[in-house]
Amino acid sequence: MVISATPQAATGRRIRLGMVGGGQGAFIGAVHRIAARLDDRFELVAGALASDPDRASASAAELGLAADRSYASYLDMAQAEAAREDGIEAVSIVTPNHMHAPVARAFLEAGIHVFCEKPMTRTVDEAEDLVDLVKRTGKLFVLTHNYTGYPMVRQARAMVREGLLGDIRLVQAEYPQDWLSVETHNKQADWRTDPAKSGAGGCIGDIGSHAYNLGCFVSGLELDELCADLSTFVEGRQLDDNVQILLRYKGGARGMLWASQVAPGNENALKLRVYGAKGGLEWSQEDPNYLWHTPFGEPKRLITRNGSGAGGEAARISRTPSGHPEGYLEGFANIYSEAADAILAAREGKAAPVEVHYPSVEDGLDGMRFIASAVASSRNGGTWTKV
Amino acid sequence: MVISATPQAATGRRIRLGMVGGGQGAFIGAVHRIAARLDDRFELVAGALASDPDRASASAAELGLAADRSYASYLDMAQAEAAREDGIEAVSIVTPNHMHAPVARAFLEAGIHVFCEKPMTRTVDEAEDLVDLVKRTGKLFVLTHNYTGYPMVRQARAMVREGLLGDIRLVQAEYPQDWLSVETHNKQADWRTDPAKSGAGGCIGDIGSHAYNLGCFVSGLELDELCADLSTFVEGRQLDDNVQILLRYKGGARGMLWASQVAPGNENALKLRVYGAKGGLEWSQEDPNYLWHTPFGEPKRLITRNGSGAGGEAARISRTPSGHPEGYLEGFANIYSEAADAILAAREGKAAPVEVHYPSVEDGLDGMRFIASAVASSRNGGTWTKV
Amino acid sequence: MVISATPQAATGRRIRLGMVGGGQGAFIGAVHRIAARLDDRFELVAGALASDPDRASASAAELGLAADRSYASYLDMAQAEAAREDGIEAVSIVTPNHMHAPVARAFLEAGIHVFCEKPMTRTVDEAEDLVDLVKRTGKLFVLTHNYTGYPMVRQARAMVREGLLGDIRLVQAEYPQDWLSVETHNKQADWRTDPAKSGAGGCIGDIGSHAYNLGCFVSGLELDELCADLSTFVEGRQLDDNVQILLRYKGGARGMLWASQVAPGNENALKLRVYGAKGGLEWSQEDPNYLWHTPFGEPKRLITRNGSGAGGEAARISRTPSGHPEGYLEGFANIYSEAADAILAAREGKAAPVEVHYPSVEDGLDGMRFIASAVASSRNGGTWTKV
Amino acid sequence: MVISATPQAATGRRIRLGMVGGGQGAFIGAVHRIAARLDDRFELVAGALASDPDRASASAAELGLAADRSYASYLDMAQAEAAREDGIEAVSIVTPNHMHAPVARAFLEAGIHVFCEKPMTRTVDEAEDLVDLVKRTGKLFVLTHNYTGYPMVRQARAMVREGLLGDIRLVQAEYPQDWLSVETHNKQADWRTDPAKSGAGGCIGDIGSHAYNLGCFVSGLELDELCADLSTFVEGRQLDDNVQILLRYKGGARGMLWASQVAPGNENALKLRVYGAKGGLEWSQEDPNYLWHTPFGEPKRLITRNGSGAGGEAARISRTPSGHPEGYLEGFANIYSEAADAILAAREGKAAPVEVHYPSVEDGLDGMRFIASAVASSRNGGTWTKV
Repeated sequence: MVISATPQAATGRRIRLGMVGGGQGAFIGAVHRIAARLDDRFELVAGALASDPDRASASAAELGLAADRSYASYLDMAQAEAAREDGIEAVSIVTPNHMHAPVARAFLEAGIHVFCEKPMTRTVDEAEDLVDLVKRTGKLFVLTHNYTGYPMVRQARAMVREGLLGDIRLVQAEYPQDWLSVETHNKQADWRTDPAKSGAGGCIGDIGSHAYNLGCFVSGLELDELCADLSTFVEGRQLDDNVQILLRYKGGARGMLWASQVAPGNENALKLRVYGAKGGLEWSQEDPNYLWHTPFGEPKRLITRNGSGAGGEAARISRTPSGHPEGYLEGFANIYSEAADAILAAREGKAAPVEVHYPSVEDGLDGMRFIASAVASSRNGGTWTKV
Repeated sequence: MVISATPQAATGRRIRLGMVGGGQGAFIGAVHRIAARLDDRFELVAGALASDPDRASASAAELGLAADRSYASYLDMAQAEAAREDGIEAVSIVTPNHMHAPVARAFLEAGIHVFCEKPMTRTVDEAEDLVDLVKRTGKLFVLTHNYTGYPMVRQARAMVREGLLGDIRLVQAEYPQDWLSVETHNKQADWRTDPAKSGAGGCIGDIGSHAYNLGCFVSGLELDELCADLSTFVEGRQLDDNVQILLRYKGGARGMLWASQVAPGNENALKLRVYGAKGGLEWSQEDPNYLWHTPFGEPKRLITRNGSGAGGEAARISRTPSGHPEGYLEGFANIYSEAADAILAAREGKAAPVEVHYPSVEDGLDGMRFIASAVASSRNGGTWTKV
Repeated sequence: MVISATPQAATGRRIRLGMVGGGQGAFIGAVHRIAARLDDRFELVAGALASDPDRASASAAELGLAADRSYASYLDMAQAEAAREDGIEAVSIVTPNHMHAPVARAFLEAGIHVFCEKPMTRTVDEAEDLVDLVKRTGKLFVLTHNYTGYPMVRQARAMVREGLLGDIRLVQAEYPQDWLSVETHNKQADWRTDPAKSGAGGCIGDIGSHAYNLGCFVSGLELDELCADLSTFVEGRQLDDNVQILLRYKGGARGMLWASQVAPGNENALKLRVYGAKGGLEWSQEDPNYLWHTPFGEPKRLITRNGSGAGGEAARISRTPSGHPEGYLEGFANIYSEAADAILAAREGKAAPVEVHYPSVEDGLDGMRFIASAVASSRNGGTWTKV
Repeated sequence: MVISATPQAATGRRIRLGMVGGGQGAFIGAVHRIAARLDDRFELVAGALASDPDRASASAAELGLAADRSYASYLDMAQAEAAREDGIEAVSIVTPNHMHAPVARAFLEAGIHVFCEKPMTRTVDEAEDLVDLVKRTGKLFVLTHNYTGYPMVRQARAMVREGLLGDIRLVQAEYPQDWLSVETHNKQADWRTDPAKSGAGGCIGDIGSHAYNLGCFVSGLELDELCADLSTFVEGRQLDDNVQILLRYKGGARGMLWASQVAPGNENALKLRVYGAKGGLEWSQEDPNYLWHTPFGEPKRLITRNGSGAGGEAARISRTPSGHPEGYLEGFANIYSEAADAILAAREGKAAPVEVHYPSVEDGLDGMRFIASAVASSRNGGTWTKV
């Protein structure tokens, strides 16, 4: 067994973390907690884990939080924690979409760094305000577009930037799921299909935004305009459950984006293909340790995480040798651990190390503009719409 | 080793076949000849194999044609063969696109059945004329949309018709290749990128039409309108080399179609995914003996040609047991062998057996309308266009 | 669409072929006929297609043989065809195993080339006699170890010979099927599980011999000794239905061979992996257009038939461009077409062109020694046995 | 996004953990620490992290251990921790093989539970002594055969026990790697190829033992005898780097086991296939979220972790929904978290919950007997040897 290139060592004492949302029965809150814990960089010490006070305190007890640091309201929590000497340095916001902006605002204004789920807000206006607030407060805002934390996604991005693909021509992104193929009612489904909580987009916001973000992250391209066809296949559903979009990037590249919650047999099948004049790349989230590189005129190459041909960008955020698969939680943890480096630097008034990447508030605004443009385009019958 | 369900027995004497185009150095002519020969249903006895007389006769000699049945002109051939008692019963047209219509016309009018490459013509008008002519002459017109001849494509179609997928919601078709990623000059590339020979579409006509046809064949849907973005990435090329299209089918289903000749790493990667309310199907041309069936809420199933779970529609046109892969030539041969059944029936004034499928002149017209609509949509900046 | 590197042109008039066995209901006879026909190098003109005279003549009629060239006995056929001016030049023997040797003998002695199914004979003695007879008569003997006819198998062999793998250390061959997982009675199963017809080996002879042959063909190694464990899992079966063998090759390489007819989920899953000091190769019969090449310390490479990185040995026996899959029948046809080149050369008293490969009577003897050694080893409780 | 069936909640305060070995530069120590931390069930509070005192204390500081709980000797650590009120409840032994037994002995005798790497000891005698000691002390002994912690391995085991495969006939296990294909010198390679530290087996002990253990765990079979051929391909290496074994299980099932460190292109390619009279299963460590189930006579089924068709045994130890891949670290963490349940039960004098699995000291003894038998068999030239 070979030695992992770069095991992530714990450096110094842990960053004190709080959480809003993520009480019992939530999925993504538990994911954030594991992600924060995996590399031993954070310690969860406070929370407003649920809107219902009983569920909030039961959840807090289960997680071992001190009783006085389980809050019934995120506003109380922001104030109280800001006032403590040992108060939280960062907060993770894992509520439904409509609460992202107000909660983020409260903590940023209290001088606390923010981790926030995507889509960042319900509207573009809210997103623009957040950008301003982040600038003003100087706090870190980390959007958990977790798929950018996969080592082989970083590898892909590095290869594009090194010019191995030549000028990029095509970005084919897709993100099919099947869990909403039929009428579905549970905690996860309900808020995601409710415009009051999700915003104007359903599938486009929940997963389309991930696919869009990933395409930009890897290709380095900026979107110019799009033509979107949003559909709702399950009767009675208020938001889109299927999204098909043509993309025109600045500089002439073209793309397609398909996201769906009604494609039976697809679990979480985010996939990105990028083609340039000199080669192509293909990556699938469900098999994340592999990256196909297809230089034109040469045999196809399968690059594996920490395997031969994989580079330093991937190795830097890997924990195990090639052939020892890392997964969703490790990719998610990379967002947290990269942010930890930035937070440690910020403690000393320094900028984050140059090699550190994490999705920012600007990425969140870009995503909101993408969602809004797609919804507008589709409402207009599928017209080309500038982002 | 298990017995193949339905080996294709030669029944009776072979059908006399001629060929126009397909001389030395041609790719698709050789494919047609193998396809016609594979099940021993045809005998090639005449040809106008090249426009250049020397190459025509050299090609004929190489194929063992009698010297007096190698023609310098397809018009001569149609006349002479129609006049012979042992004249050809069918002709295969494997020329560049611009010659399909005139050659087909000549042979149909001479009372000879026609196999014709796609796209069927250069224009919709020509295609409509051919439809009329076929009706008038009563001859068979077989469009070699060969991918419909793969057993597992038939299996997929049968499963949709049996209702195993429920109402169809989504048709995702793609057909990327990479051979025109850079400026390329050879016999195959030159006519395909020349509007005078190809018609108004490049990639859209050459391979986009296949992907479109396959989607309709399997799903049973009819297209209502489309929004197309055709691109040319290689400088100096006159026709599109990349095609991205949104599709709206009659009845509300949605689709996407991507075809490309500039996607490095893709050789001939035609792939179809169809999703309905109850399940999905996925098929890839490069691995044609497999069909994924994903009934919602059940494990994914991999159905193999002649394997457990595969049905009679696939077995009927298979030659080998499961695990003994059939390929492109066998699928192509199925078009010929099915048509042979129809020709034998026609000899006796009967209709083709009900189980026989082959792509028809109407499919060709439908394809031409698809191409014309896509070109028009794209020229208008990517507007929704009725087919 | 790119031009196939080397379409197989028909050169000169066809070779006259006869067949023994392969009447109605037989699987492998039909395969041989397609294989012989695919490249238009042979014409089937005579046959002793079944031991039952009625079935023999019905089968012959179905195949369009002249009535006077359908024989009730292979001995009659050998004599009569040898006496005709237009008599067959070669015969295909597709009977159960016990008839291979006597039929081959009859035709060789009549001066007729022989294509013979494997395993070549029932015993090593018979095989040695055949080797002598072939030498004495100077006729061609082509053993249809058809898997050596796949282009990517040739590619693999060429890469080993070029030294790309370095010294070969390991040969891992497997050939699992599942069709005899339960008690099975049909024409195919019955003779294969009957020692009187199959010889001393069941699974070892039927498919183990293919896996062994393929390993030697690609690696270029010769076997020194083996240790075999043959099992019969289905009650009442007289012959082995599962075979597990350790192999020691001359020069120190090691190998394993597993063949099974009782491994549910495996259709015809012949697979070969060869590893040397500098790299590895992996090929699977069910996906025959792909070859993995894994040079040590570099990314894995997926080489495709006629794709980038594939060489001339594969292209020479390919008919279609990369991405247009060829399959079992094409690989089988390559054995026939290569032999056709050898037969044409023999007509003029010349040796076969140097690039031509076909499995020979010596390969057949080697296979019989392998089978006999494996049976002996297993009967002795699994002891190391020299081949 | 669907809710994970069974997120692992932290229950109560964390178990106090120590570690022996695993200082800077070690691979497996870091893995154990992440595994222990992932579900928040353990807290690392003490260590004798390296034999070199400077490296030991530097490593301890890096991990945030209190200075007085970083020990220069494991013996001191066992005594001191046993004497503390807040002393460790369990220790993880992640040293080279030769230190497993003495360290385990020291902590067991001090009344501390043990997590121990495999192979458990250097000799069968040492292993037998450990079994006795575990019985005598009543402490838990958890052997980190981590691959049994993968959810889909549990799924496979459950399916075998439910009888879905019928009587098991075949167990095909393989574990090829390539990292020792050439002469290699580093910390990881050196002790693994040194008999004084590894014991009598090289590849057989390091990875062959995993493959063997996995086969028994899933199939439920016990080995009766084996015939092993151990090879050393890299010149100068003192221990085997390639292992090929025939297996006979009690009750008549047969198996093969291949493990290699010299198979280029294989990173950590542990793979298990089990076949019974009614169906088969196939699982690959590098793609651990998938399990093929192939019931005889039905289509192949691909079962995914937490996807349709997956059962409670897998869900119980999963953290994320289907399509969100878990990997090596999560599987490893499952061993720790299951043991945590057992330790919590032991705190109260209770037996572990019935659903809890972890590899035990008896599994370790079984593995040592397997290794010893294989080495003996191979030294005798490859003779059948009772385990």
